[in-house]
Amino acid sequence: MTNGAFQDYYPDAFAHCFGCGRLNKDGLQIKSYWDGEESVCHYTPKPFYTGGFPGYVYGGFIASLMDCHGAATVSAAKLRADGYSLDDRPISRFVSGSIKVDYLKPTPMGPVLEIRGRFKEIKGRKVTVSVTLSAEGEIRAKGEVLLVQIPESK
Amino acid sequence: MTNGAFQDYYPDAFAHCFGCGRLNKDGLQIKSYWDGEESVCHYTPKPFYTGGFPGYVYGGFIASLMDCHGAATVSAAKLRADGYSLDDRPISRFVSGSIKVDYLKPTPMGPVLEIRGRFKEIKGRKVTVSVTLSAEGEIRAKGEVLLVQIPESK
Repeated sequence: MTNGAFQDYYPDAFAHCFGCGRLNKDGLQIKSYWDGEESVCHYTPKPFYTGGFPGYVYGGFIASLMDCHGAATVSAAKLRADGYSLDDRPISRFVSGSIKVDYLKPTPMGPVLEIRGRFKEIKGRKVTVSVTLSAEGEIRAKGEVLLVQIPESK
Repeated sequence: MTNGAFQDYYPDAFAHCFGCGRLNKDGLQIKSYWDGEESVCHYTPKPFYTGGFPGYVYGGFIASLMDCHGAATVSAAKLRADGYSLDDRPISRFVSGSIKVDYLKPTPMGPVLEIRGRFKEIKGRKVTVSVTLSAEGEIRAKGEVLLVQIPESK
């Protein structure tokens, strides 16, 4: 077993995403980990990722965090479902198929955000994960991300 | 009538959004306009907004463009529905209620992206807009954004 982040195991060729690629020096470089059956990511946005009025995170940023954390979660979940750990073999990569986000209440800018993912179902190459985003102990948004496995990735 | 972008009419207090606020010097500063019954926005992302493998735009960025263009569209549509033009009175502001994006095919990095919005329905303070994102003449993603009018904005 490893304590490394899921994104640290992406093959170099797939590690350029603005949201989650470790090789994107201009990007967010979010990091996702297992926490029991759930995956978790902590991230504190820079203040300029504000919404229309300062003090709150803008909706697109929340969707981006959910999209990237969701993609990382299904990659790691697929590996785990196949009976492997992150150190055993290359991680599969997925692309976004669809995303749905419900913004439940404003997300304050400043506190660390906690994004949690839970594997929901798999249908062929399509995998769905449920995601929540919390700040100060309250869920601010919930979402569902459908990812599609890239055929050439194992 | 005016040829100004919708976002140029946001009250200063609501013009800080990373995606669409004209006062956010670090932001995208997207601009949306009427094109008949539809709204349109053209935007060319910087190359670092790539997906996992270079050459394609990442999903969260597409969701962000749709979210912000959708919010601008409903603001302008509300004004138009009330019988006013952008120069007549302050534009109402909305916050994201929910967003759903279907990624239909990869969005290439490089070509200008065209985001189109179409007002769909209004239910009290909740307004829904349909959005498409195209590159090189092909629709790459389609979405639906539900916005909620901020009570204190008229």
